[in-house]
Amino acid sequence: MRSLQIFALDGVGEINRGDDLVEVFFNALDAGSHRLEHRDVVIVTSKVISKSEGRVVDFDGTDEHRERLIAQESTRILRRRGPLRITETPHGFVNANAGIDQSNTADGTAVLLPRDPDRSARRFRGDVARRRGVDVGVVVTDTFGRAWRNGVADVALGCAGVRPILDLRGTRDAMGRLLEVTEVAIVDEIAAAANLVLAKDAGTPFAVIRGLSDDYFGEGSIAEHVVRAPHGDLFR
Amino acid sequence: MRSLQIFALDGVGEINRGDDLVEVFFNALDAGSHRLEHRDVVIVTSKVISKSEGRVVDFDGTDEHRERLIAQESTRILRRRGPLRITETPHGFVNANAGIDQSNTADGTAVLLPRDPDRSARRFRGDVARRRGVDVGVVVTDTFGRAWRNGVADVALGCAGVRPILDLRGTRDAMGRLLEVTEVAIVDEIAAAANLVLAKDAGTPFAVIRGLSDDYFGEGSIAEHVVRAPHGDLFR
Repeated sequence: MRSLQIFALDGVGEINRGDDLVEVFFNALDAGSHRLEHRDVVIVTSKVISKSEGRVVDFDGTDEHRERLIAQESTRILRRRGPLRITETPHGFVNANAGIDQSNTADGTAVLLPRDPDRSARRFRGDVARRRGVDVGVVVTDTFGRAWRNGVADVALGCAGVRPILDLRGTRDAMGRLLEVTEVAIVDEIAAAANLVLAKDAGTPFAVIRGLSDDYFGEGSIAEHVVRAPHGDLFR
Repeated sequence: MRSLQIFALDGVGEINRGDDLVEVFFNALDAGSHRLEHRDVVIVTSKVISKSEGRVVDFDGTDEHRERLIAQESTRILRRRGPLRITETPHGFVNANAGIDQSNTADGTAVLLPRDPDRSARRFRGDVARRRGVDVGVVVTDTFGRAWRNGVADVALGCAGVRPILDLRGTRDAMGRLLEVTEVAIVDEIAAAANLVLAKDAGTPFAVIRGLSDDYFGEGSIAEHVVRAPHGDLFR
């Protein structure tokens, strides 16, 4: 039986610039009497990455200020409707309002996306290995809207130690034919799965997934492997 | 601690028109010594729904035949590139080649999407309740490409007993402000999570998720709640 376990960590307080996120994570882990295992995947919401990295700005809540922040945090606006902008960010993400977020941050402030979420994930992973001697994968997540379907879902903005795309090319189906659908964005499926335990409580920025297949682990980044190049994209 | 468990069921053979899928599911469950629990969610791939409902057609593998099938199974073509068509289906799904699938089906055939995957899910759920007295949620899944991001991921085509969209409107953040992002497509996150145990083995059409929050259960359908109306869609 292939079986996964996913759990959220409780008891994480407010995160501020310069906080040692890995220490906060270890404290939450220990407080819940959890042990980290080799090949666990740790999910970290981008919001606490941003806060610890000082990506919080003053924001007066006006449309004018939002427009200025969106202009600063995006490279292109794909669509407009009312105050909503569908933006392309410097990372190549397509999202709403450049990912600028007013929830769960101090009044008069907004949280911006991390500058390089893959790097943040690599750093987190390296720190976990150094301090606890455990080799985990790390996925930095955020909540995005989607084309064609209602509702938001979590996706990966950065990763480390995880293969973002599982390449099944060369795999044969039960009838012995080569599979047509060959590249599965498992890193986004990991992000979505973690949100099932995180969605209802914005105060919980960490989840752990245990039991993922060995071949989900390896090298790769969101920037290089998941972001679709604009020129190859039918919907930009 | 909020914690989820996800497991796949092994030992499911080929499914044919008229097969009793719920019996096949029970047999796989019993063979693996699993017990179904109240408020488990059962994930069923759309391919076995289609096969059991006879949605398999002759297909000679030529581009001409594919074009004819796509024309028959779609209401609109949004984009074209080489042999790829991004289609809108009668259900309102936006996908590649109207979801017509040649993998894991007999040579010379292709599998079409179920006509009404919400109805298929409701029927499956009703049968489970009748025969085993257990109230489960059911999600019928398929693998779709996405705009802006490489790789495919599983989404929900139909559901029963599960709230497809978790509405957090009225929920306040840790600072006491109303949340901005309010509607989470948990049904698609369930589909994605299940694919983490299903992706590598197309012979396994069933997974079970245990431990989902009570308020993820309720009424709703993919057709009504998840499919975005074309006129409100910025990318159609």
